[in-house]
Amino acid sequence: MKRTLYDADHESFRSSVREFLERQVIPHLDAYAEAKAIPRDFWIEAGKQGFLGLEVPEQYGGSEAGDYRFNAVLTEELAKVNMALPSCLGIHADIVAPYLVHLTTDEQKQRWLPGFCSGELLTAIGMTEPSGGSDLAALKTTAVKDGDDWVLNGSKTFITNGYSADLVLVAARTSPEKKARGITLFAVESTREGFSRGRKLDKVGQDESDTAELSFTDVRVPSENIVGELDHGFIHMMTWLPQERLGSAVTNLAHARQILDETLAYTKDRKAFGQSIGQFQHNKFLLADLFTRVEVTQAYVDQCVAAHAEGDLTPIDAAKAKWWTAQVQSEVLDHCVQLHGGYGFMNEYRVARAWRDARVTKIWAGSNEIMKELIGRDLGL
Amino acid sequence: MKRTLYDADHESFRSSVREFLERQVIPHLDAYAEAKAIPRDFWIEAGKQGFLGLEVPEQYGGSEAGDYRFNAVLTEELAKVNMALPSCLGIHADIVAPYLVHLTTDEQKQRWLPGFCSGELLTAIGMTEPSGGSDLAALKTTAVKDGDDWVLNGSKTFITNGYSADLVLVAARTSPEKKARGITLFAVESTREGFSRGRKLDKVGQDESDTAELSFTDVRVPSENIVGELDHGFIHMMTWLPQERLGSAVTNLAHARQILDETLAYTKDRKAFGQSIGQFQHNKFLLADLFTRVEVTQAYVDQCVAAHAEGDLTPIDAAKAKWWTAQVQSEVLDHCVQLHGGYGFMNEYRVARAWRDARVTKIWAGSNEIMKELIGRDLGL
Amino acid sequence: MKRTLYDADHESFRSSVREFLERQVIPHLDAYAEAKAIPRDFWIEAGKQGFLGLEVPEQYGGSEAGDYRFNAVLTEELAKVNMALPSCLGIHADIVAPYLVHLTTDEQKQRWLPGFCSGELLTAIGMTEPSGGSDLAALKTTAVKDGDDWVLNGSKTFITNGYSADLVLVAARTSPEKKARGITLFAVESTREGFSRGRKLDKVGQDESDTAELSFTDVRVPSENIVGELDHGFIHMMTWLPQERLGSAVTNLAHARQILDETLAYTKDRKAFGQSIGQFQHNKFLLADLFTRVEVTQAYVDQCVAAHAEGDLTPIDAAKAKWWTAQVQSEVLDHCVQLHGGYGFMNEYRVARAWRDARVTKIWAGSNEIMKELIGRDLGL
Amino acid sequence: MKRTLYDADHESFRSSVREFLERQVIPHLDAYAEAKAIPRDFWIEAGKQGFLGLEVPEQYGGSEAGDYRFNAVLTEELAKVNMALPSCLGIHADIVAPYLVHLTTDEQKQRWLPGFCSGELLTAIGMTEPSGGSDLAALKTTAVKDGDDWVLNGSKTFITNGYSADLVLVAARTSPEKKARGITLFAVESTREGFSRGRKLDKVGQDESDTAELSFTDVRVPSENIVGELDHGFIHMMTWLPQERLGSAVTNLAHARQILDETLAYTKDRKAFGQSIGQFQHNKFLLADLFTRVEVTQAYVDQCVAAHAEGDLTPIDAAKAKWWTAQVQSEVLDHCVQLHGGYGFMNEYRVARAWRDARVTKIWAGSNEIMKELIGRDLGL
Repeated sequence: MKRTLYDADHESFRSSVREFLERQVIPHLDAYAEAKAIPRDFWIEAGKQGFLGLEVPEQYGGSEAGDYRFNAVLTEELAKVNMALPSCLGIHADIVAPYLVHLTTDEQKQRWLPGFCSGELLTAIGMTEPSGGSDLAALKTTAVKDGDDWVLNGSKTFITNGYSADLVLVAARTSPEKKARGITLFAVESTREGFSRGRKLDKVGQDESDTAELSFTDVRVPSENIVGELDHGFIHMMTWLPQERLGSAVTNLAHARQILDETLAYTKDRKAFGQSIGQFQHNKFLLADLFTRVEVTQAYVDQCVAAHAEGDLTPIDAAKAKWWTAQVQSEVLDHCVQLHGGYGFMNEYRVARAWRDARVTKIWAGSNEIMKELIGRDLGL
Repeated sequence: MKRTLYDADHESFRSSVREFLERQVIPHLDAYAEAKAIPRDFWIEAGKQGFLGLEVPEQYGGSEAGDYRFNAVLTEELAKVNMALPSCLGIHADIVAPYLVHLTTDEQKQRWLPGFCSGELLTAIGMTEPSGGSDLAALKTTAVKDGDDWVLNGSKTFITNGYSADLVLVAARTSPEKKARGITLFAVESTREGFSRGRKLDKVGQDESDTAELSFTDVRVPSENIVGELDHGFIHMMTWLPQERLGSAVTNLAHARQILDETLAYTKDRKAFGQSIGQFQHNKFLLADLFTRVEVTQAYVDQCVAAHAEGDLTPIDAAKAKWWTAQVQSEVLDHCVQLHGGYGFMNEYRVARAWRDARVTKIWAGSNEIMKELIGRDLGL
Repeated sequence: MKRTLYDADHESFRSSVREFLERQVIPHLDAYAEAKAIPRDFWIEAGKQGFLGLEVPEQYGGSEAGDYRFNAVLTEELAKVNMALPSCLGIHADIVAPYLVHLTTDEQKQRWLPGFCSGELLTAIGMTEPSGGSDLAALKTTAVKDGDDWVLNGSKTFITNGYSADLVLVAARTSPEKKARGITLFAVESTREGFSRGRKLDKVGQDESDTAELSFTDVRVPSENIVGELDHGFIHMMTWLPQERLGSAVTNLAHARQILDETLAYTKDRKAFGQSIGQFQHNKFLLADLFTRVEVTQAYVDQCVAAHAEGDLTPIDAAKAKWWTAQVQSEVLDHCVQLHGGYGFMNEYRVARAWRDARVTKIWAGSNEIMKELIGRDLGL
Repeated sequence: MKRTLYDADHESFRSSVREFLERQVIPHLDAYAEAKAIPRDFWIEAGKQGFLGLEVPEQYGGSEAGDYRFNAVLTEELAKVNMALPSCLGIHADIVAPYLVHLTTDEQKQRWLPGFCSGELLTAIGMTEPSGGSDLAALKTTAVKDGDDWVLNGSKTFITNGYSADLVLVAARTSPEKKARGITLFAVESTREGFSRGRKLDKVGQDESDTAELSFTDVRVPSENIVGELDHGFIHMMTWLPQERLGSAVTNLAHARQILDETLAYTKDRKAFGQSIGQFQHNKFLLADLFTRVEVTQAYVDQCVAAHAEGDLTPIDAAKAKWWTAQVQSEVLDHCVQLHGGYGFMNEYRVARAWRDARVTKIWAGSNEIMKELIGRDLGL
């Protein structure tokens, strides 16, 4: 099915992203994985290309495209390379950006956004805690007022960019008695005393991304680092959920699709019992099924992107896109591994790494179960 | 997800269809099922409303809407009532119509189309044979030239409208040595000598539709009843496959969606162990899953309808829509039955009949396996 | 996998069951379905053959086989014919029997068991109510003491044998304040004043069985008709659940297996595109999958039967057998329909009726969801 | 469901295996993974315990248990620790052993078996080739006679124990014109000139096992190293397939079961939204489902083990056990990961490594597709 989402400007932007990736990223991927980190070079170069400031006004160094379809194109092209790139870049440029653009004072904008756009100020977001998972009402990190400052204590886990971030947006409890309505967002510089990072987490996949635990021991943060309103953190976080979920969905599908395309090519090349393995009826039907599944899903994701570009995407429709694409990706990649036979279990084959990388997508950023809970509530259940 | 496919004209047309159904059809459905037939009244009235001639030029009594979205609206509203209505009406107004409009001579148009639009000339199409299933190369019905006439012999099965049709489009082998390229389409009046109908078939579902075997014993048909070109029947049939498959897809999804909506309402009403059964987490997650599945699929079907309205829908994209919607419908309805508990097994509950009605959709008009074979070939396998 | 469950005695008994079925049942099945009832002749003849009294001591007319494997053989052979036979006979001989044998006084035994074994006193069991489904705590039928009698009011639904039964075991609330611990079982003769039967329910499948609603309006029942102890009905019902569930499991699997065997034969016979349809790789792999699924499940069911023959089957292991076989049956039969193509939607093909018949097995006698709830609790959840 | 397969002797043997593992293996697992190899110490110690010679006559250092249930117990206990242990030990003691015991001359037995039992002569088997996968008819490794010797050329891949083996059983083509009937088995010492090992393969999972490519460049092997009859290699390999497949099945299920048990415990401990996560109905039903699936499968596997202990297991029944357990394991472990939330993606959690380790089981030793092909043929398709 021919996609109708993008026009010539988007496709031209896509070419520039692709060129950047081919020239400056793909040759170094093994080094990223080895180092368990995307190097600062990547960020600086992406900044130069204008890929970090799509959400940021021009006066602060961004391009303020004002059209989410550019974000989607960028995400798709990164996802075609692997899952770690759109994950790391997305946290910074898609997820943290709206907070720093829409909830900040002029002073804060000037302090943070130029570096944000240039790649010199790398960001992360700290919501999840070791004990609580997706349950924000159970948030244990606290911020207690002391003079003009706030003193933070607690820890966060599974923080993408956690090891390399310069500035972390941290959700902390400021009014313990008010439950979800007593949470505030603080921008915490990684240089502050008492801020420490655990080791890089040893993950099943996405070796290239640095994921870490962060801990805060009497970290003193001035009031000027509060992002948005005091005690309004929960509402702020809810506001940008559709974009986070949609970014996940775009990533999931573009990644799965790329691997499926490569797998189709593989099944045409690889011979067994005297024919291409893709020509065995079982495999042929399976590939027909998987391509259908992916194209049907693409129609929905594209509809979501179009709606979001108009500001019309609901958190629930985004939740549907997120869990469904994670499910489809999981099914598609498991079959792609199988179609590669023994090579599908070898890390030098990309399908193997893709399968490992993608497993987390049914879990992170609100698990499939959490998404279904929300959709169910929306149905009046 | 808000649909963007239709505009105010389509919705206004939808209202008129709905009113027709509520006033003139729904009160009589039990009688249809009892009689195993949709009565001629239905057709005459649908003709008066202009529902039969959406594809037919005005000069022959149609409205020539020239916008497939009206067909889609009509199909959706019929499918919300049950599966037999869109099946029977679709065979006539969506599937046979293009043959009679685009392949016919002026004389043929004048002979057939006015009655076609008024509901006085009910049509059917005869491709499938008892021995051959979907394999057109194995077609056994023959037409042998004898003077200016052709003499048909053979039989057809699973013919929707077969028992009540006045005119049947029959695929017959005219050049046996040319395999698929030796098939011709004949319009055969049911009054011709040697034309006979078997009993109405006793089906698992869709009690309201009359499905029959037809047999042809030395049926003499004049050359003027050939539709399209001699020996070009196969190509003609291929040409309108996208519309047939898309009609199936629209039906499948609208039907499944309606039953799912009704089931959601049921699970809110029905109490067990002290709460609405829809509130049990298992059921809540299940309903969230099913609604996601349906909405994702709707995006794809809508994209297909939009493409077809522009003349851009490929047979392969239509094949994807057909099998996928049949699969989704099958999954959705099985769960809907389960959510009704014991009542789901009682014919007086609509969900029970819907489940029976829908089983054939993975089989008819090219089974899911045939669709996957075609998609696989299109992938180069 | 060769089964090791049965010895020569069981196989000899199997032959006698099979002969009975072939001679006296199979030729009349269409008449059963037409009448929506298994005629009394069937019961009388089954009684003569000793098939009704496998659980009943010899002094009351039974054979007291004392080996559940005979019950299993009988159930399997009935299930190979269709699902209604093992359902109707199972309610009487497998499910009601233990109550009448183990909970009754000598006087009651003498009153009921001889007719029970001869087929002159046909029984049913009434637990499920229109409003409550599987939730016994919500039971609404009441029995109020009046002198030496009890006066019953309420209604029961989905009662197999309900239309033809002479004696119905009814669960009624005798101590409303004691919830599940205030239920008593009454044996109610159908001739009592105030006992009435609704029409035979119009079911999706199992046309041969008579399923009915029963209602009780001031039905006066003497204390001598209490089965077991006053207020102990719930405990009594729990006691024989393993046998009921196991009977369902044996039926499910024997039925699915028979249809699968017939479908395999069909796919060898039926040709398309120049070969047997079973030889297409997709179908071949599918059939390999289904046969594996059935044989794996058989191993578990046989293990359950062997355990139950020793009195060692737990209600939870029986629950696993029940839901799993229902699930497997559902998957197997849906594929068997598909493998029959259009004929799979025609009631004259047995696979079509089998598919309809079997749908209820995921629902009745404790739905799959109820079974999972129980198993989950047993896991400590 | 209580298992009935084992008696007290088997359980006593199980205790000794468990003690060995706890004392001498489990404390060193991280080192194994780090080294990507099971150290020779393990083998020597396992040899001392008698675990390597269960198939070998006493006169050559084995225990000749003569009861496959001991092999099954050993496999189960190893699989509870991880998948690499039963894989590596199984290749040696379960798969290579029968060749060296049943096809060898006295001289060969004396040469190889004592070291085989003591762990000093570690073995591997080389069938699969880079180009051919499971297609033995496409075998490219050749052995050409030269005087009394044979000269081998070719390469093998995915060889478990390939990096550490002292003796490799190699399938080579000796009569090229005779296709599958022209293959011979050679025992090749790793010290022979021209024998070389590629690097240890970087696998998705089973880090502890050394898997390697082997290549043979003019490797000279004396005729006394032929195992079995010249040109009979294919038949020899077919003979011991049931045991290889059954070993896989036992491993799959014991491994999945262990992880499922641990996951159940985790869901009881882990709290979210104020309760144990296992108590959420969705999770509770899921766990009920998974435990059912595992227990049903256990019944079949146990039946296979019992049959094999009697010498009655067919290759087809073993094929069913192999693919089905791989499928069940795959489903179970994916859900276990999900139930662990974000921790399921962290390698320090065992469930994460188990998920990676197990992926290959649907592929190796005859993929699920190959198994279905064989089962399909056995059905007459």
